[in-house]
Amino acid sequence: MSQRVCIIGCGSIGSLYAAHLARVAEVWAFVRRPEHARAIAEHGIRVSGKPGHEFVARPRATSDPAELPACHLGIVCTKATQTPEAVRPVARHFHEGAVVSAQNGLGCEEIIAEFTGARVIRATTFMSGTRHSDTHVTLDLDAPTWMGPFEPTATPFEMVERAARLIVNGGLKAEALRDARPTQWAKLIFNASVNSVSALTELPHCAAFAAEREFADLGHLLHALIDEGCGVARALGIELPEDVWEMNCIGARTDHPPSMLYDIRHRLPTEVDFLGGAIAREAARAGVSAPLHTALYRLIKGKEASWTWTPATKHSAAGPGGAGNAGE
Amino acid sequence: MSQRVCIIGCGSIGSLYAAHLARVAEVWAFVRRPEHARAIAEHGIRVSGKPGHEFVARPRATSDPAELPACHLGIVCTKATQTPEAVRPVARHFHEGAVVSAQNGLGCEEIIAEFTGARVIRATTFMSGTRHSDTHVTLDLDAPTWMGPFEPTATPFEMVERAARLIVNGGLKAEALRDARPTQWAKLIFNASVNSVSALTELPHCAAFAAEREFADLGHLLHALIDEGCGVARALGIELPEDVWEMNCIGARTDHPPSMLYDIRHRLPTEVDFLGGAIAREAARAGVSAPLHTALYRLIKGKEASWTWTPATKHSAAGPGGAGNAGE
Repeated sequence: MSQRVCIIGCGSIGSLYAAHLARVAEVWAFVRRPEHARAIAEHGIRVSGKPGHEFVARPRATSDPAELPACHLGIVCTKATQTPEAVRPVARHFHEGAVVSAQNGLGCEEIIAEFTGARVIRATTFMSGTRHSDTHVTLDLDAPTWMGPFEPTATPFEMVERAARLIVNGGLKAEALRDARPTQWAKLIFNASVNSVSALTELPHCAAFAAEREFADLGHLLHALIDEGCGVARALGIELPEDVWEMNCIGARTDHPPSMLYDIRHRLPTEVDFLGGAIAREAARAGVSAPLHTALYRLIKGKEASWTWTPATKHSAAGPGGAGNAGE
Repeated sequence: MSQRVCIIGCGSIGSLYAAHLARVAEVWAFVRRPEHARAIAEHGIRVSGKPGHEFVARPRATSDPAELPACHLGIVCTKATQTPEAVRPVARHFHEGAVVSAQNGLGCEEIIAEFTGARVIRATTFMSGTRHSDTHVTLDLDAPTWMGPFEPTATPFEMVERAARLIVNGGLKAEALRDARPTQWAKLIFNASVNSVSALTELPHCAAFAAEREFADLGHLLHALIDEGCGVARALGIELPEDVWEMNCIGARTDHPPSMLYDIRHRLPTEVDFLGGAIAREAARAGVSAPLHTALYRLIKGKEASWTWTPATKHSAAGPGGAGNAGE
């Protein structure tokens, strides 16, 4: 019980880690809203949904960085876009320890490393849950968290193993890998492709994403996005362990609404900078081209910009026109 | 006054042709809605907006094909997607004459030729207007209609010249060209690029479309779409007369909402099959690649499909999830 762990951000994934780890370690939930912290302190976190995952755990919780003691381990579970604001206030608490990014995409590790000065661990999980309230979460898919050293902080593999062991002891699945980039990239390519197409079409991950019969079928585009992403990974020397197209075909049977579709519908900033944007940037860095991920990245940034767009011109034509103009 | 002309579809462009030509020919407006025909028959069409274009004209009007006599010339002004339903009922009326497609994009000529058996004329216009009611239209931009033979119907050039002369006599600008494909393709590439990006981002044609400073800037995408379209034209042996990128930069100062943005906002079928879809198909036919136009075409078809999408699976995950699922 000597390990002290801080979970940064308690959405569904953060709540699942916080509750399970609180059974085997001193866990602090660091959350943004004071009422969220008070609710966890008062009621604990209730987990349900799977045999062996039906319990109430009692982590400590705070929204005040001054209340948080120094921790051996941090697990960042916020949306990728919220990483700087979530990590900055508690950055000095992990100076001697390790911090895991259990977030989507690519790029959070760099931010965490810069702010905390800690040893950083890449983590990728397909675990999924549904957050019903501040204090109740169901475990929907009990999939492992794959973890490995973030190379730039030279994180010792023993630190990764210790973190993975803690998660396993808490009752979840985890695996320490000497190189976690292949699993991270497989999920990155899957996520970037599916989320971008969903955000722009406003279709959930449905059968159309795997259809390749007609010329107009979206499956052709998904296939090309996945192939392009795998090409970028190869150019970076990363051999993918999974058939990402097959992952897409399985997901296309679920009608699941990807998180970026949720963001688009609610006009929230998307994670595209950490998904398709990350593939586009890494491609540029590796000197290979990724025209499709780059195009979709720019379209989604344009879509985000449309929510706050106002005419620059006084004599804007944004009146009754549109359908009335043959010019375009 | 011996020429008898039928304008098929009286939106803003059709109303402008009908009113101007009614001053020098027997003009019939063939429209879908009976009340539209009655309104024109009762009030005529009022044109305003420019010196020399302030008048009321009195074309005949009907929504009943049986009332329409045989015509020397037809001008189709409907949305490209409405071509079959608009032309089919009056197809036999142009057997001996010529039919102009003054519509957006590429592909309407083939449909008109098949249905009417007439000599078909390609037309491209940047003329624009605003339709205020069934009987009032303003001329916003008095730009020429470029016209040329549709090669598969071996339309004699004299027929094109006669049609252009009629439009000029009516008070609008027109020019007969031996090869109208370069102007048609310049507008096609412009329209396909601007409309697709606008439809997917829901931004009007604004400054962002010409911005090329940051990596995420949309101007890079517009530039790539335009270059790709020009490459397809070149592969088909078409030398473009205009600098399409420059056209985009000028348009980007207007904040004009393209017609496809109007369609997307109102969940109407877009003209994408005749714009980006046409470039993608022509590229495939010419054996060159057009990955960006093809990708955006598929996204827009997917977006149209989203309006009527329903879950295929009974145990659909389309519930509260989305933000709650780390899987994607």
